[in-house]
Amino acid sequence: MPVETAVISLEEASTVVDVTLREGVARGYSPLTAVVLDPGGHLVAAKRSDGSSIMRVDVAFAKAWGVLAMGWPSRELTDRAQRMPQFFAALGVLAGGRMIPVAGGIPIRDAAGRIVGSVGVSGDSSDHDEECAAAGIEAAGLSPWLEPST
Amino acid sequence: MPVETAVISLEEASTVVDVTLREGVARGYSPLTAVVLDPGGHLVAAKRSDGSSIMRVDVAFAKAWGVLAMGWPSRELTDRAQRMPQFFAALGVLAGGRMIPVAGGIPIRDAAGRIVGSVGVSGDSSDHDEECAAAGIEAAGLSPWLEPST
Amino acid sequence: MPVETAVISLEEASTVVDVTLREGVARGYSPLTAVVLDPGGHLVAAKRSDGSSIMRVDVAFAKAWGVLAMGWPSRELTDRAQRMPQFFAALGVLAGGRMIPVAGGIPIRDAAGRIVGSVGVSGDSSDHDEECAAAGIEAAGLSPWLEPST
Amino acid sequence: MPVETAVISLEEASTVVDVTLREGVARGYSPLTAVVLDPGGHLVAAKRSDGSSIMRVDVAFAKAWGVLAMGWPSRELTDRAQRMPQFFAALGVLAGGRMIPVAGGIPIRDAAGRIVGSVGVSGDSSDHDEECAAAGIEAAGLSPWLEPST
Repeated sequence: MPVETAVISLEEASTVVDVTLREGVARGYSPLTAVVLDPGGHLVAAKRSDGSSIMRVDVAFAKAWGVLAMGWPSRELTDRAQRMPQFFAALGVLAGGRMIPVAGGIPIRDAAGRIVGSVGVSGDSSDHDEECAAAGIEAAGLSPWLEPST
Repeated sequence: MPVETAVISLEEASTVVDVTLREGVARGYSPLTAVVLDPGGHLVAAKRSDGSSIMRVDVAFAKAWGVLAMGWPSRELTDRAQRMPQFFAALGVLAGGRMIPVAGGIPIRDAAGRIVGSVGVSGDSSDHDEECAAAGIEAAGLSPWLEPST
Repeated sequence: MPVETAVISLEEASTVVDVTLREGVARGYSPLTAVVLDPGGHLVAAKRSDGSSIMRVDVAFAKAWGVLAMGWPSRELTDRAQRMPQFFAALGVLAGGRMIPVAGGIPIRDAAGRIVGSVGVSGDSSDHDEECAAAGIEAAGLSPWLEPST
Repeated sequence: MPVETAVISLEEASTVVDVTLREGVARGYSPLTAVVLDPGGHLVAAKRSDGSSIMRVDVAFAKAWGVLAMGWPSRELTDRAQRMPQFFAALGVLAGGRMIPVAGGIPIRDAAGRIVGSVGVSGDSSDHDEECAAAGIEAAGLSPWLEPST
C-alpha cells in the first residue's frame, strides 16, 4: 500500500505568508520575506515586502528547505548546527547553498502530525523571523514543529 | 543625477499573481503557477496552484526572467527565438537555464511606460498562460508589454 | 502604485570608478579594481588597473553584491560577519560565492536616502579599499552608506 | 626564453568602451553595453548604458570571451558556428555559457599583430554591435581582428 501523505494547500500557504508579513508590520520589524514549500521542497507561495533586500527570497527558501532536508524540528536543527559546524558547512555545500540552519525555518504539521510543508522567513533577527513564521502557521490552522518532543 | 525608476509594489504583484491564477480557473485551464519579479529579476510574489507540478515555479521564473534579461517585449522575444534558435540556446546556457523564450512571460509597465517588473506563468499552453498573465497585469492597473510598437 | 526608486546613472558610476582608482594612485596603494552595481546587483561600470590581479573583478563584485544582498550598511555587514561566521559562510555558498563581507563594499545612496547601487573595491587592504570607494561615491555627488544610524 | 606578450592597458580599454558606447548613441542605436577583456579572458573595463537590460554585461562578456577561447577572428568564429552548430552548443556548455558566437565580439591586436585582449558589445543587432566595437578599437590605436587573412 502507498503511504498516505498530505500537502499544504495553496490557500493555507497563502495564509501563512500573509499573516507572517502582517505580524512583522504589527511588531515594527524590518520588512520580511516569507517562503512556503511543500514536503518535496518545492515553492508553493512566496512574498517579499517592499524594501526587503534582493537576497531575502533565497535566504528564506534556504531556511525552509533546510528543515525539510534533514527532517528535524527547527530548534533541533539550530542546536545541532551550533554543535557540529563542520557537518553543517558540508551539508550546505552538498545542498548547493539551500540550507541555512538558523532560526526562521519551521516544519509545518497538520492535526495528524504529518509534515505538510515548511516556511522560511528572513528580514529581521532570526528570532523575530521565527516568531512571525509561527504566528503565520497557526493562523492557517496548522502546527509549527519547534521542539523534538512535540 | 540618478535615473528615476519604479518598482512594482508587493500589493500590485500579489494582485497580478492572484488574478492570473483565478483567470486560469475561470477558463478551465490546467492549474497555473505565476511568478512576479522586480526589474532586477528578483522574486516579489509567487503562487503555485494545488496540483501544479514541481518544476512550474522554475519555468515561470525563467519566463519572467527572460523578458527582463534582454529588454524585449514578449512577442519580440518569442519571434527572435524562433528565428535564432542557436543564439537563444546559447543565452539559455549563459543564464544558467533561467531564460525560457516562449509565450507566458511579459514585461510589466507603469503608466509612464517604465518597466516595473515582469510576470511568468506556466501550467497550460503557452498562449493560455499568456492570456492569464495579461489579465493579471491589467487587474493591477498596470500594462502588459506585448508588442515592440506599444 | 509602483514604488518610486532611482538607479545610479552610468555617468555617476563612471565617476565612482574613476575617482576610486585615482585615489588609490594618489595614496600610493596597490593597483585597485572597482565595480559599480545597480540596486538589482547588475554591473554598471567596472575598471581593473594595470597590474591588478586576475580575480580582483570577482572580489570587487562580491563585495558590492554582498552589501545589496542583505540590505545592510557596510560596517553592519562586516560586524555581523565577525559575530556570525557560520551564518555568513552559509550565505556565501547560497550566493554562489558572490558575497564577501569585508570592508570595501559600500551601498550608495542618493540625496533622498534611496539605495541607487553599490560599489566594491579590491586591491589593497580592505580599509584602504573602502577609503577610496567612499571618496569615489562622494565625488559623484552621492552618499556612502557606512553606519546603521546614517 | 619566455614568450614576449602584450596586454591592453586600462587606458586603452577605457577608450574602446567609451568610444563604442558613443558610436552607438551617434548612430541612433539601442543603448549598448561593452566589455573589454585581457588575453587571459579577465575583465579590464566594462560599461552598461542607462536603459541597457540586465543580462547585457553577461552577453557582451560571452562575446568577448568566445573570440579568445578558440583564437579565431570574429568572422571566422561566426562562420564556423553556423556550419557546426552542435560543436558550438557543446563549447557553450563547456564554457559554462561564456561563449556566444555571434557578431559583436572582436579580438584586439596591437601593431605587431599580437592579441592584447578582446571586446564584446551587446544592445542592438549583432552587426550594429560589431560596427561600434570596431570603431572603439580603432579609436584606441589598436586593430580589430575581423578576417582570417588580416
